[in-house]
Amino acid sequence: MAGSSFGTIFKLTTWGESHGKALGVVVDGCPAGLPLTEEDIQLYLNRRKPGQSRFATPRKEDDCVEILSGVFEGHTTGTPISMMVPNTSQKSHDYSEIASYYRPGHADYTFDAKYGFRDYRGGGRSSGRETIGRVAAGAIAAKLLKTMGIEVQAYTRSIGPVSIDPAHFDASAILDTPTAMPDREASLQAEKYLEQCMKNLDSAGGVIECRMLHVPAGLGEPVFEKLDASLAKAIMSIGAVKAVEIGDGTLCSQTTGSANNDAFCIRDGQIAKQTNHAGGILGGISDGSPILLRAHIKPTPSIFSSQNTVNKNGEEIQVQIKGRHDPVIVPRAVVVVESMAAITLADALLVNMSSRLDRIMELYQ
Amino acid sequence: MAGSSFGTIFKLTTWGESHGKALGVVVDGCPAGLPLTEEDIQLYLNRRKPGQSRFATPRKEDDCVEILSGVFEGHTTGTPISMMVPNTSQKSHDYSEIASYYRPGHADYTFDAKYGFRDYRGGGRSSGRETIGRVAAGAIAAKLLKTMGIEVQAYTRSIGPVSIDPAHFDASAILDTPTAMPDREASLQAEKYLEQCMKNLDSAGGVIECRMLHVPAGLGEPVFEKLDASLAKAIMSIGAVKAVEIGDGTLCSQTTGSANNDAFCIRDGQIAKQTNHAGGILGGISDGSPILLRAHIKPTPSIFSSQNTVNKNGEEIQVQIKGRHDPVIVPRAVVVVESMAAITLADALLVNMSSRLDRIMELYQ
Amino acid sequence: MAGSSFGTIFKLTTWGESHGKALGVVVDGCPAGLPLTEEDIQLYLNRRKPGQSRFATPRKEDDCVEILSGVFEGHTTGTPISMMVPNTSQKSHDYSEIASYYRPGHADYTFDAKYGFRDYRGGGRSSGRETIGRVAAGAIAAKLLKTMGIEVQAYTRSIGPVSIDPAHFDASAILDTPTAMPDREASLQAEKYLEQCMKNLDSAGGVIECRMLHVPAGLGEPVFEKLDASLAKAIMSIGAVKAVEIGDGTLCSQTTGSANNDAFCIRDGQIAKQTNHAGGILGGISDGSPILLRAHIKPTPSIFSSQNTVNKNGEEIQVQIKGRHDPVIVPRAVVVVESMAAITLADALLVNMSSRLDRIMELYQ
Amino acid sequence: MAGSSFGTIFKLTTWGESHGKALGVVVDGCPAGLPLTEEDIQLYLNRRKPGQSRFATPRKEDDCVEILSGVFEGHTTGTPISMMVPNTSQKSHDYSEIASYYRPGHADYTFDAKYGFRDYRGGGRSSGRETIGRVAAGAIAAKLLKTMGIEVQAYTRSIGPVSIDPAHFDASAILDTPTAMPDREASLQAEKYLEQCMKNLDSAGGVIECRMLHVPAGLGEPVFEKLDASLAKAIMSIGAVKAVEIGDGTLCSQTTGSANNDAFCIRDGQIAKQTNHAGGILGGISDGSPILLRAHIKPTPSIFSSQNTVNKNGEEIQVQIKGRHDPVIVPRAVVVVESMAAITLADALLVNMSSRLDRIMELYQ
Repeated sequence: MAGSSFGTIFKLTTWGESHGKALGVVVDGCPAGLPLTEEDIQLYLNRRKPGQSRFATPRKEDDCVEILSGVFEGHTTGTPISMMVPNTSQKSHDYSEIASYYRPGHADYTFDAKYGFRDYRGGGRSSGRETIGRVAAGAIAAKLLKTMGIEVQAYTRSIGPVSIDPAHFDASAILDTPTAMPDREASLQAEKYLEQCMKNLDSAGGVIECRMLHVPAGLGEPVFEKLDASLAKAIMSIGAVKAVEIGDGTLCSQTTGSANNDAFCIRDGQIAKQTNHAGGILGGISDGSPILLRAHIKPTPSIFSSQNTVNKNGEEIQVQIKGRHDPVIVPRAVVVVESMAAITLADALLVNMSSRLDRIMELYQ
Repeated sequence: MAGSSFGTIFKLTTWGESHGKALGVVVDGCPAGLPLTEEDIQLYLNRRKPGQSRFATPRKEDDCVEILSGVFEGHTTGTPISMMVPNTSQKSHDYSEIASYYRPGHADYTFDAKYGFRDYRGGGRSSGRETIGRVAAGAIAAKLLKTMGIEVQAYTRSIGPVSIDPAHFDASAILDTPTAMPDREASLQAEKYLEQCMKNLDSAGGVIECRMLHVPAGLGEPVFEKLDASLAKAIMSIGAVKAVEIGDGTLCSQTTGSANNDAFCIRDGQIAKQTNHAGGILGGISDGSPILLRAHIKPTPSIFSSQNTVNKNGEEIQVQIKGRHDPVIVPRAVVVVESMAAITLADALLVNMSSRLDRIMELYQ
Repeated sequence: MAGSSFGTIFKLTTWGESHGKALGVVVDGCPAGLPLTEEDIQLYLNRRKPGQSRFATPRKEDDCVEILSGVFEGHTTGTPISMMVPNTSQKSHDYSEIASYYRPGHADYTFDAKYGFRDYRGGGRSSGRETIGRVAAGAIAAKLLKTMGIEVQAYTRSIGPVSIDPAHFDASAILDTPTAMPDREASLQAEKYLEQCMKNLDSAGGVIECRMLHVPAGLGEPVFEKLDASLAKAIMSIGAVKAVEIGDGTLCSQTTGSANNDAFCIRDGQIAKQTNHAGGILGGISDGSPILLRAHIKPTPSIFSSQNTVNKNGEEIQVQIKGRHDPVIVPRAVVVVESMAAITLADALLVNMSSRLDRIMELYQ
Repeated sequence: MAGSSFGTIFKLTTWGESHGKALGVVVDGCPAGLPLTEEDIQLYLNRRKPGQSRFATPRKEDDCVEILSGVFEGHTTGTPISMMVPNTSQKSHDYSEIASYYRPGHADYTFDAKYGFRDYRGGGRSSGRETIGRVAAGAIAAKLLKTMGIEVQAYTRSIGPVSIDPAHFDASAILDTPTAMPDREASLQAEKYLEQCMKNLDSAGGVIECRMLHVPAGLGEPVFEKLDASLAKAIMSIGAVKAVEIGDGTLCSQTTGSANNDAFCIRDGQIAKQTNHAGGILGGISDGSPILLRAHIKPTPSIFSSQNTVNKNGEEIQVQIKGRHDPVIVPRAVVVVESMAAITLADALLVNMSSRLDRIMELYQ
């Protein structure tokens, strides 16, 4: 089926395989009049580009984006924005062996089970390179939101056992550190942990946190298009994410109502909440507080130690994966989480426009 | 916007407010030829019905379902199945006071922010009674899956700090105990914990686990309609769910690739996995292993102790909620989680039919 | 599949069979704050009710609508509006014979081919009674449009060979005449034609025209959601419609560009068109002129003369249809066309709200 | 909104402007295993390419397609197929003047009304070049259908007042004649008519007919996704189409039931129809007879004689359009109609797979 589209009004359709000619995305439904350049997109893509630290695959790919449609005289026209990133650095011989067997933790087997065969080069459609389309679209969504005063910011909260200390939160470190942690001290510890993982021919996972600030109250649609439900789908659709939390998340199940309820109050003449255990969403609708989510990322399945698996002939074998692989994908996935959150929010913002008759009448007068 | 529909082929649309005339659901896209009676639906609805234990609201509602269309001579016809449950036990005077203020932890404020006003009686559309439509549809999805040999089973994994012991797993206890725990010993402890909560005029949350057995490999669509992404949305769309985990879930972020990867093996002549950290889904597609998910449920926001909040005039006030409320909604939500999982799976099963040309040609010959 | 839903933002889902317990519709995505009563709906339903003239089936059905959700204190709440019309006058014995054979011009055979069996009572889901849900939803859409100053008006343009004379257009006759023609003289002639058809045990078709006034320019989305494309689908989805025209329609294919182009001009200080061959739509987007469409309706397939057909055993037989059937469905279908046009327009109006960044920023300030 | 996508399972998303860098389409949901090459696509694109006869714009564009994803080792993989056609021959200076005024019969004014501004070069998104994406996708749909034995064939039925004689139907002439008429004699007459139009600085319209052969009974979904409704939308979404007919179409409104009903019969041991007034669709579902539709195309709005219009300053002016324009677009639009019909049919074929439980169980065994 058509599973490569996301969104109702602000809608993207991604395409492309790891070792095909190119990857890309079509963003349809972006409002007309938004200033947009390739530079806006490239800044986001650079954050997920490989080869930027010793914890990322040394593959050197330019990942240069080209806008092919939907922008005229520097502004979006309201028609589909097609963006493409050519694949320039694929070494197919690195991957040719994996055609014959199923890598543990990868989608090789399930793609074969579903489609009867697969583009085995570098994971094909299930490769992490698929996220290029998400990030390119996310850059547009984020720019749209920024124009409305809404900020979306993701960062690494933990890698393996090493977590940031919220008391040391330093936003400037997100783009500086190789871990994308907003805590330079924690980042150094995480780097040590990753070096040990690499020595062990092993890999690590981690947690990405994302916060959305200045989101107006009222976004999200009951019952099935709740904002948290849409965010959960958006984030869980990123490869390697195994859990999604909103606000206090898993902690909620162990606390009590009196501790978990956020009391409403008046702050600066506005309705606000004294605490934010809910993470900015009540009944699936934004409440004006910061929206908070966390994505739990599994360790990179491509590890260099020997593993048991089976081949296409149904024989049990031992394999040792070669090639260039990130010992941890968390730092590069930060901008992917940020992008999917921005896309979801932008769509919810546009969808919400028709919720009230009085606003509709105002707009059409 | 139209947020009350879910699914692509097997598609439901729910409607109804807590204190309106009725609640219901239209299930469109159910294949023709499935034997179906009102009794099939009622058995599921009875599991979420209030008034069944001392930990559930003492409201007595019959919640009797009527099938209004789509079934002829005992079988589904392929056309929409409309089901309705009349509201018979609403006491609107219990709720009239809440029209004027915003209950902490509820959607009162966000509905007002979105729509300008709300049906304040019993939470209106944001009430837990909204799940009646999900459960009625879930009963059909579960029956469809059962016909294909697929089982979906949810149960309470923990309430507050009390968890089941997987070693004592006893499926028969799920329907027997007031907690829906598959462990009678843990259930007794949880009951004590809940009694203490009630004495404290407080409430509890918990964790619901769901497993799906005998799911064929190949379900789920890359990239955005991954099976885990769709399940995450389905489950997070249930009111009070604040986190969703697949397989090892949050634990994945702290482990290593070598520990987290599931080695493929041959079992009974079939490709299988030695472990199931992935929870039955790889690359967003079912791998043939049991699918496992967990939903973290927040404590019931309706507590009887005094709380701070604001009223519609923007004044800070103290309120004490009255009425009939569950001290924990987890046991009644078990069948809701089971229903949403079944609905998601049924849809994925139908959507997957067109993935391979050879199968299509076979079907049309 | 789920084919019983229509619309993106203003979205309806209909359900019900001719001889089931009831028929109904769920309207999701109607903005909050629209005043709405059952009387608003009933007025529309009464226009399609059977038994109102000697050219309509003498079945007496009350077709009384009940609003079950989504309206509170006289206004829509933004949540799904569920409406139901119980079936009260079904005489199943009238239809029992048709279980065994396929009526020419009906969907008996195709439903069996698709689903393996069918609810054969009165046509089941393919009965004209299915349009009850459309009309109930159309009443809401029309009220929403009227609030914005937009009028949708359909009428019979011709029955068999008898056409109205546009020079004698008299809107008051639409609701008065048994033909729904806005020309009393033409109506009398059409009545004579119909009487002759009935004597011949035969039936007639006709043309319904619909015009939409005061539609703002800008509605409709390129490329596939063009306003005329959406209208074409909406109208062609009504049973018995075999052709749809926009503006000059079929005449366009025989004329020349110089005759067909509508020159732009300035009228009352606004951009307008000197003629309206285009029917109010250019490039799939409304241009501010009246939108005009025509639906061509085939003659009622239920005729009382003897017909050749086959039965389920694959034998060629002769049949004579009994029961109560309209000799022409055009007059009763007028409100169905009007409803589908209103629904399509309402949806386009809401969808268009997010087309321009400046309007979005205005709304959220 | 996102209006550039079409289809439920077999789904395309087109993008691109007349004078942008490129145009393209993403086809998602094409089943895995279909043999596919760029040559398959190019053959279809060549049929709509400009510059092929004296009745088509002399612009010389290669319109060479490149497949960027979704095909591996010569077969579709089940993942999105991205196709791109670079724009190589745009002369923007031909169009620069039209930035300031609104061409009659074009979408210049409505795009401005909707989006606030527009890419005015060559019509931008509303240009006929937009159909490149449709045709590229249609080539895939047609190949998929052909694999199932289904043929889709469109041709010019009339140009201006000149119609083909069905008795002289000669399929080989469709690709041979400059008119795409399957009647060489009629084609010569039409050519004379077109030459006269060109002398008059005028343009012509016409009718395209499409027939679909060997379509299995059962395709199309009641109520709103009827096969004729989907076809009507598909065809009406093509620029310049002003009417769509199914089977006898507009004639139905003037005939009687006894003449219009198609009697069922047994032919070659199968249920068939003695006539086919219905055009192969009953109750919105294919009945196994050939499906027939007609599209009425308006005359090219770009004519070289002087026209009245207004400019962006709201002044009435006279304009004379320059540049390269087809005096009739009908011959080049034939493959566009064929493509949209094939796309709609392919989608209906895949969607119908889940209509019956017995088939589902068979497929999953």
